[in-house]
Amino acid sequence: MAGLRVHSVLVTGANRGIGLGLVQHFLGMPNPPQWVFAACRAPTGQRAQELQRLASKHRNLVIIPLEVTDPASIKVAAAQVGEHLGGSGLTLLINNAATAKVNLLDQETLENMTNIYTTNTIGPLLMGQEFLPLLKKAAQGSPGSALSCSRAAIINMSSYAGSITDVYVWEYGQVVSYRCSKAALNMLTKCQSLRYKEDGILCIALHPGWVQTDMGGSGAHKPPLTVDESVQGMLKVLSSLSEKDTGTFLSWEGKVIPW
Amino acid sequence: MAGLRVHSVLVTGANRGIGLGLVQHFLGMPNPPQWVFAACRAPTGQRAQELQRLASKHRNLVIIPLEVTDPASIKVAAAQVGEHLGGSGLTLLINNAATAKVNLLDQETLENMTNIYTTNTIGPLLMGQEFLPLLKKAAQGSPGSALSCSRAAIINMSSYAGSITDVYVWEYGQVVSYRCSKAALNMLTKCQSLRYKEDGILCIALHPGWVQTDMGGSGAHKPPLTVDESVQGMLKVLSSLSEKDTGTFLSWEGKVIPW
Repeated sequence: MAGLRVHSVLVTGANRGIGLGLVQHFLGMPNPPQWVFAACRAPTGQRAQELQRLASKHRNLVIIPLEVTDPASIKVAAAQVGEHLGGSGLTLLINNAATAKVNLLDQETLENMTNIYTTNTIGPLLMGQEFLPLLKKAAQGSPGSALSCSRAAIINMSSYAGSITDVYVWEYGQVVSYRCSKAALNMLTKCQSLRYKEDGILCIALHPGWVQTDMGGSGAHKPPLTVDESVQGMLKVLSSLSEKDTGTFLSWEGKVIPW
Repeated sequence: MAGLRVHSVLVTGANRGIGLGLVQHFLGMPNPPQWVFAACRAPTGQRAQELQRLASKHRNLVIIPLEVTDPASIKVAAAQVGEHLGGSGLTLLINNAATAKVNLLDQETLENMTNIYTTNTIGPLLMGQEFLPLLKKAAQGSPGSALSCSRAAIINMSSYAGSITDVYVWEYGQVVSYRCSKAALNMLTKCQSLRYKEDGILCIALHPGWVQTDMGGSGAHKPPLTVDESVQGMLKVLSSLSEKDTGTFLSWEGKVIPW
């Protein structure tokens, strides 16, 4: 990861799973970011204890309360982040917060479809809009005009399950609401890449692999990857991204996934 | 269209544009369906006058009140359709109702994203669930086991704008909410094709072309296709579909569109 020099990063859903793993790895880098913003819904809650412990040890870690389905909450978070950054911009926005419910197609409901789309797809859209001024500032303050994750980027945590071409692990509970939200997130990513290119912001959809987290599941369906393996792979991918990669859908190993 | 022999068809959003065109063409076939169910939100309203005029002339046309975003309304509609059909099934479900709002990415809102997803993606999911028993009945009552539109099928009216690969006519207002809803509808179609294959139901996503309708727009951006041209093309495509086509994304000319 020699190539990844990030001035500042914000990770949503940062209190557990892949989000927490990303925060830990950013903090542990030889050249850690000046600011690591760890956003989660309930920063003082039981489920954010590890984040609190880390914050007591790392002065560059700031925990930000954030509900990605609430435009007002996003606005407050962006203002807080902007205040910490002073005059500088935000290098990396990692839209990691997501939700899923294991349902068969026959069991999906209006409510479930709506809830999952709101968190997984609309959240990243709203985050991109609200943090755009900070991301632009990072891009403008960076030398050169080529796109990269060291300059300014939006990373949308997608999933191979959102590949319409492959419908990866269909047998694993079908999860149509989740698949639809991730296919839509992939479309959003492509649209963001087209819209934000002029602002110097790289945008990609990233598949973290099937990871041992609360969402990934356990027991009979124990996923093959640890959080560390996934995060290490993804950070290596981020360090390698350039202009040609914006608007693509990549795996934690850097492979292109078909839409 | 010699190959398309449909016992019964339901078209949503049937009071205008492509939906109305489909109804007119089904009624005008040499071998028209025994039942054409034209579903729309306000069957007695100003905007359904042409449908009312047609119903006064064609005894096989039944106008069904339907709000595709309301599970209770869908349930009532399915019961009404079932009653008309007596013991027989529904051959074709055409999820045509859709909405769009021309917005730039920067202008999209939570409300707009939600509304458009609810109509364009969740509606077709709920319709498929609720009409499944009638579609299964059609499949079971049909000779042979091969999938076809003369046996039982769900046709989801998608759009080339929903192709993540091509992001067709990005310059035309961006319409990210619409694109995301159609990419998600494409995913839904693929999932429905996997789930409903065992029930003998063919499922495809269909791009009607860029058509001269209220949604298609007019004036400076006058679309190239008339409703008649689009509908004739689509009915020809439907007549040609077989087992191998289920789960695909086709244009009104029968071309495969990349996801």
